Amino acid sequence: RTLRIGLIPGDGIGREVIPAGRQILEALPSAFNLKFSFVDLEAGFETFQKTGKALPDKTIEVLKSDCDGALFGAVSSPTTKVEGYSSPIVALRKKLDLYANVRPVKSVKGAVIPVDLVIVRENTEDLYVKEEKTYTAKDGTKVAEAIKRISARASQRIGRIAFEIALKRASIRGPDSPVSPLVTITHKSNVLPQTDGLFRETVRAVFKENPSYSSVRCEEQIVDSMVYKLFREPSYFDVVVAPNLYGDILSDGAAALVGSLGLVPSANIGDGFAIGEPCHGSAPDIMGRGIANPIATIRSVGLMLEFMGETEAAGRIYRAVDGSLVEGECLSPDLGGNAETQEVVEDILKRL
Amino acid sequence: RTLRIGLIPGDGIGREVIPAGRQILEALPSAFNLKFSFVDLEAGFETFQKTGKALPDKTIEVLKSDCDGALFGAVSSPTTKVEGYSSPIVALRKKLDLYANVRPVKSVKGAVIPVDLVIVRENTEDLYVKEEKTYTAKDGTKVAEAIKRISARASQRIGRIAFEIALKRASIRGPDSPVSPLVTITHKSNVLPQTDGLFRETVRAVFKENPSYSSVRCEEQIVDSMVYKLFREPSYFDVVVAPNLYGDILSDGAAALVGSLGLVPSANIGDGFAIGEPCHGSAPDIMGRGIANPIATIRSVGLMLEFMGETEAAGRIYRAVDGSLVEGECLSPDLGGNAETQEVVEDILKRL
Ligand SMILES: CC(C)[C@H](C(=O)O)[C@@H](O)C(=O)O
Ligand SMILES: CC(C)[C@H](C(=O)O)[C@@H](O)C(=O)O
Repeated sequence: RTLRIGLIPGDGIGREVIPAGRQILEALPSAFNLKFSFVDLEAGFETFQKTGKALPDKTIEVLKSDCDGALFGAVSSPTTKVEGYSSPIVALRKKLDLYANVRPVKSVKGAVIPVDLVIVRENTEDLYVKEEKTYTAKDGTKVAEAIKRISARASQRIGRIAFEIALKRASIRGPDSPVSPLVTITHKSNVLPQTDGLFRETVRAVFKENPSYSSVRCEEQIVDSMVYKLFREPSYFDVVVAPNLYGDILSDGAAALVGSLGLVPSANIGDGFAIGEPCHGSAPDIMGRGIANPIATIRSVGLMLEFMGETEAAGRIYRAVDGSLVEGECLSPDLGGNAETQEVVEDILKRL
Repeated sequence: RTLRIGLIPGDGIGREVIPAGRQILEALPSAFNLKFSFVDLEAGFETFQKTGKALPDKTIEVLKSDCDGALFGAVSSPTTKVEGYSSPIVALRKKLDLYANVRPVKSVKGAVIPVDLVIVRENTEDLYVKEEKTYTAKDGTKVAEAIKRISARASQRIGRIAFEIALKRASIRGPDSPVSPLVTITHKSNVLPQTDGLFRETVRAVFKENPSYSSVRCEEQIVDSMVYKLFREPSYFDVVVAPNLYGDILSDGAAALVGSLGLVPSANIGDGFAIGEPCHGSAPDIMGRGIANPIATIRSVGLMLEFMGETEAAGRIYRAVDGSLVEGECLSPDLGGNAETQEVVEDILKRL
C-alpha cells in the first residue's frame, strides 16, 4: 500500500517537528508493507505574510485530490490584531470536515500521576464557527458578539466516535482489565441549557439508542468541575467528549498532567481523512534551536496511521516512543533532559 | 458601625456553610466596632420547586433596599433539563450589577505547591448573558445558538479592578518583597479576534492609559495555554483577569492546586455591594452529614468585609483560618481529616 502524505509544517517549531514525523514514516519496517510519498504544503502566519492567505487554496486542493492523510505542525498566533488573518488549522478542519479531534493523553509506566485518557473534541462548530460582529451600543460603548453554535448532527457524530473509541480501548485492555469503559460528557448546561444542553442530550441519546454501547458507562461533568476533577483524580477518566472550546482547554490541561505539551498528539479525523497534529504551538521562544520535542508529532503520525486502518504500524510507533521515554536516556529540554530533536528521533528510530 | 447582611443559603451544603459564616461575623472581637444583623433570604433549586421561581423578587428587593452585603451558599443544578429553571446566582450578579468576581487562591505556608494568585472574573456578560435560541436547519438537524457578548465598558471596569488589586497586593507584600505585581489577561483572541480581542485590547488600554499602573507588568495568555501554565507553574501568576466563562473554569482549576474547592472563597462585587460566595457547589453527595468544609465560606466572609472597607476584620479572619490550616489538627474530610463542619468553625473561632 502506498500512501501519499501532505506535510504542512506551518510556523516556528512546526518546521522542526514535521521532518521528524516524516523520518518515522520512512523508517517503518518493510514488514508493514507501507510505502509513503510526500508533498510539501504551505499554511501559517508566515504564509499569510508572504501571500496574504494563511491557508492557500492550493493546500486544500492538494489535500483533497491527492493525499491520503497529512501532518500539520503549528501556527503562530499574532500577538496584536492583524487584519485579514485567521487561523489556518481551524479553517482546514472545517474545509475538510474533520469533525473529530482525538487527543490521547497517557503517562508512561511508573509515572507519579498515572493518566490514560483520551479527549474527543468536536472540531467544526461551537465558538469556532467564528461568526463575530462588532457594533456600538446605545450608551456609546463598543460591543462585540460571537456565536456559539451546537448542532444535533455534529453532537451525534462526535458522540458516536467517543463511544466507538471507548469500546476500542476496552478491547485493547482486554476482558481481564479492572478498568471499565467510561465516557464523560463535558458541558456547561447549567448556564447554557439550549446549546450545551443539546450537546449533552444528543450524546446521551447516542448512548441510549445504541445497544452495542451498553457495556460503556456514560457520565457527565460540568466543565469547571471537570477541570477540577481532571487535576484531582485524572485516573478516573477514560474517554472525555466535549464541544470544541472545552475540548481545547481540557487537552492542554491534561497535557500538563503528563509533564509536557511536547508529548501530546492529536488527530483531526473525518470520514476517510486524518491530519495528525501535535497539541503544542509554534513555540517562538525555542524555534530554530533544534531542541523541540518531536514526540507529540511522532505520536500524531501513529494516530494518523491508526485512523487509516494501519493499527499495527501505529502500535509499533507508540511502543518505540514509550520505550524511549521509559528508558529516559534521551529526553528533550521540556522533559528536563538536554537531547536535541534529532537525537530523540534517532533514539526512537532505533526502537522501530 | 452596624451592617445588615442577607443570608442566602441556597441548596445542599449551602445550608450548612452559611450558618458557619454567620457565626464568624457574630464572634468578631468587639475591638473592630462592628455589629451585624441578619436577614434570611431564599433562592435556589428548592425555592424554584416550591415557588416556581429560583430567585424570588423579594430576595432582590431586600438585598437592594435593606442590606449592606450578603452571603450566598450554593445552588443545585438539575441533572436533566427543567423548564423555566435558571441559575439564581447568575441572575443575582446581573440584577445587582456585581460586575467583578474576585477569587483568591492561596496555599498555606509550607504547601508542596506554592500558590498565591487571584482570579478576577468578569461577572455580567460573555456567554452568561444567556441569550440562546433553537431552530431547525435546512437539512433538518436541530441547531442551538448562544451569544457570547463582550463590551468595552465591562472589560474596562474589570480591567481596572484587576490592576487595583495588583497594586493592593503589592502594597501588602511590601517594598522588600521579591514578587513584582503582574496582571495576566486570559483570552482566546486567536479564534475570537472581535470578542476576546476587545477584552484583551480594552484591558491593555486600561493599563497603558493609567500611569499609576506602571509598576505592574501586564502580560497575556491564551486560555488553553493558561490552563497548562497554571498547572505547570502556578507560582508564576499574581492577578489573572478573564472573561466570565474562562474565569469560571480557571478558578476551579486553581482550586485543585490548593487541594480542595472547599478552601476557595469568592466575592461578587459591584459599586457599593458585595456578596461573599464559596466557590464550591451544593455537593449533594455529602449534604446533610455536617461534614462540609466551612472554610471557603468563612474566607468569603473576609472578602465581603474587605470590600466593605473592613480590612482589619477581614485580615483577622484570614489569619484565623490560616492558623487552623497550618496547625492541621482540625481538617474536614475533603482535606483528608475527619472533623465536622462545626468543629472546624470552632477551631477557627478560638483563633479570632
Ligand atoms: C491554534 C488554535 C487555533 C488551536 C485551537 O484552538 O484549536 C490550538 O489551540 C489547538 O488546540 O489545536
Ligand atoms: C453554578 C454556576 C452557574 C456558577 C457559575 O458558572 O458561575 C458556579 O460555577 C460558580 O463558579 O459560581
